[in-house]
Amino acid sequence: CAERVAHFEQDVWSIFTPLAVECQAVNLGQGFMNFPPPDFVLEAAREALLRNDCNQYSHPKGRPRLRNALAKSYSPLFNRELDPEHEVVVTAGANEGIFSIFAGYLDKGSEVILMEPFFDQYIANITMNGGVPVYCPIRPQGDSTKEMSASQWKVDIKELESKITPRSKIIVLNTPHNPIGKVFSREELEEIGALATKHNLLIISDEVYDRLYFNPENHERIATLDGLWERTITVGSGGKTFGTTGWRIGWLVGPKKLLEPALGAHTRIVFCVNSPLQEAIAIGFEKAEEQKFFGSQVSAYEHKREKLLSVFRELGLPATVPDGSYFILVNTDKIQVPQDYVFPDLLYKRPRDFRTCYWLAKEIGVVAIPPSEFYSKENQNLAEKFARFAFCKTDETLDAAAERLLKLK
Amino acid sequence: CAERVAHFEQDVWSIFTPLAVECQAVNLGQGFMNFPPPDFVLEAAREALLRNDCNQYSHPKGRPRLRNALAKSYSPLFNRELDPEHEVVVTAGANEGIFSIFAGYLDKGSEVILMEPFFDQYIANITMNGGVPVYCPIRPQGDSTKEMSASQWKVDIKELESKITPRSKIIVLNTPHNPIGKVFSREELEEIGALATKHNLLIISDEVYDRLYFNPENHERIATLDGLWERTITVGSGGKTFGTTGWRIGWLVGPKKLLEPALGAHTRIVFCVNSPLQEAIAIGFEKAEEQKFFGSQVSAYEHKREKLLSVFRELGLPATVPDGSYFILVNTDKIQVPQDYVFPDLLYKRPRDFRTCYWLAKEIGVVAIPPSEFYSKENQNLAEKFARFAFCKTDETLDAAAERLLKLK
Ligand SMILES: CSCCC(=O)C(=O)O
Ligand SMILES: CSCCC(=O)C(=O)O
Repeated sequence: CAERVAHFEQDVWSIFTPLAVECQAVNLGQGFMNFPPPDFVLEAAREALLRNDCNQYSHPKGRPRLRNALAKSYSPLFNRELDPEHEVVVTAGANEGIFSIFAGYLDKGSEVILMEPFFDQYIANITMNGGVPVYCPIRPQGDSTKEMSASQWKVDIKELESKITPRSKIIVLNTPHNPIGKVFSREELEEIGALATKHNLLIISDEVYDRLYFNPENHERIATLDGLWERTITVGSGGKTFGTTGWRIGWLVGPKKLLEPALGAHTRIVFCVNSPLQEAIAIGFEKAEEQKFFGSQVSAYEHKREKLLSVFRELGLPATVPDGSYFILVNTDKIQVPQDYVFPDLLYKRPRDFRTCYWLAKEIGVVAIPPSEFYSKENQNLAEKFARFAFCKTDETLDAAAERLLKLK
Repeated sequence: CAERVAHFEQDVWSIFTPLAVECQAVNLGQGFMNFPPPDFVLEAAREALLRNDCNQYSHPKGRPRLRNALAKSYSPLFNRELDPEHEVVVTAGANEGIFSIFAGYLDKGSEVILMEPFFDQYIANITMNGGVPVYCPIRPQGDSTKEMSASQWKVDIKELESKITPRSKIIVLNTPHNPIGKVFSREELEEIGALATKHNLLIISDEVYDRLYFNPENHERIATLDGLWERTITVGSGGKTFGTTGWRIGWLVGPKKLLEPALGAHTRIVFCVNSPLQEAIAIGFEKAEEQKFFGSQVSAYEHKREKLLSVFRELGLPATVPDGSYFILVNTDKIQVPQDYVFPDLLYKRPRDFRTCYWLAKEIGVVAIPPSEFYSKENQNLAEKFARFAFCKTDETLDAAAERLLKLK
């Protein structure tokens, strides 16, 4: 095999999602919904299938209707008139979009600054394209044995600057952040943006949870800050926006010149994105406002967040209260995994949180994700006391999880 | 931008598909259907959308139901019991599957043997992964000013062997072949296979048109030949098989060990493939036999092939009669494009067939694809006298094209 894939380990998703099925555990692991997408989006998909042109190739950039809908929906959020012809590219999920940016920008040895923890796929997306990830921690400021706000997790901007070298090309921002649930403040974005400008870095702003944040007054987009549009590609996700993680519709928003290398790569990697579900996401955006969809989705998630938080409070397990996304990072130090518990061999080679999560799945019947997956090898110890729980689940599922978790008392 | 994307030119598809719309030309260019997929497949997709689990992430390998259906449908064709767990991987179209194989196998400087002409995306798929394409022509044996059979296009096996170096890693076979329509004979496959074995090459057998061939007695799969299963990854396409080019469902079939590097790459590039349309393609395979689908599809295409061939015969334009695929390569030497015709600037930088095809679109109202897109820069002159016409279109569309083309008389 090629060097670029030689060191791949099994990804966390294909360990814990099958494990959930195997143990009939309540699955709060991988971030996908177990409730249906909104009717108006589903119906749009069903109708699109009846139209011939929706079953054949789309333009590599994406279907005009979806690009138009995205431009229309995002223009007010970016404080500018987005050009659907040149400033939006539809990708096969946000993941392929991010891969395509790296493919379009990284040469051998190009460095990419990541704030740690980070979404695990970034690493392979970078290294497969010859790049070198460079890590800067986001650290919890304060007492992690007590509940804290996601906003208390902070990057030290001096430390971040110290990671920049002449080989640095890109800095990746993820807000709302997976797995912390942090929404970066305007001040933080300004500092990061100033660094990017000073050192001439491209910013990838991974905003796949951009419709899922709980304090509207604190949600900003780095691309809207002074002078930063010109150096930022913002990444979005239909799966997160409409509860359709299996449709694989994502997008990139940014200036034509910045998108071109990514579009070139994307066109060769997947050629184009599936047509009928693009059409449905387009219609989703067209109708979202009249359906008051985004607001009611946020309310529903806020309720789910409270439901799950209350369990950790009752258990005395300190959680990070997310300001966005549908994940809760929980300090599991107090959970007593029996010393003599026997794990599958595979798990002894992984950090401790893999074993805690395995035990939770097997013995408590609830699956969570071990967050060391979101850290570099050197820093996995920072993650070992945590587990990540997803609340993008029906209330019934969350209640069932609560019942099981309360056995930990 | 990165070096790997620096030399991309605009792809032929995003020139000629929009041109067809712009000139209201009959579009026999890009190979997509303008008729609906079969009802039983469409209905399966519409129903899948109503099932929660079909709207969320699938396993990176593909949904079990589709892998099972593929294993069941392909086992008799491969003369072996395929293991759906390990010998099938579902990809985001055949294109992403091929990209992922290259990503999984090529290191900087690895050489890939291509038979020329070749599907244009291969080149970027190889070079983006550090590989170097090496070309060996498939030449028309005989008088190309007369109609000929696709089987008269031949590779010289000695010449092919002369292209192999210590850096050669992969040989790509494409049968049925796009754009020639050639179905490689058993003897040809044995010769190519023997070379691969002798020089220890991985074979990628791109068989996306594997359900579209017109002489059943002459259709073989290289993976079924003695000792070749172990070194072959076969690529298939739901789009070609069920007339759903916009669904982006493809697959790789091969031994577990060979698929692993490609699966590793694929998992990081797209994570997984859209779920509802995977489910529909699974059901398509499950029902294809009872619906006698593949046989009647071949008959329909055979009829369409004859319809279009008769036009070229009437015009005295020598065609290559395809044994598979839905393309006809036509010698357009006799078409008189006025000397003083003025083309967009872009087209003067391209080989002559781009201008012939542009003129056909504008003045005759029929779009075809210039096949120099399928040749290396050095050999584009071999293509200049040809144009490629697709017949995966309704009979009405083919009749309309005929009417327009007959103006050339
Ligand atoms: C690659 S699947 C990961 C899904 C997800 O977004 C998450 O759970 O973090
Ligand atoms: C990448 S779109 C090409 C479609 C196709 O298979 C062809 O027309 O050759």
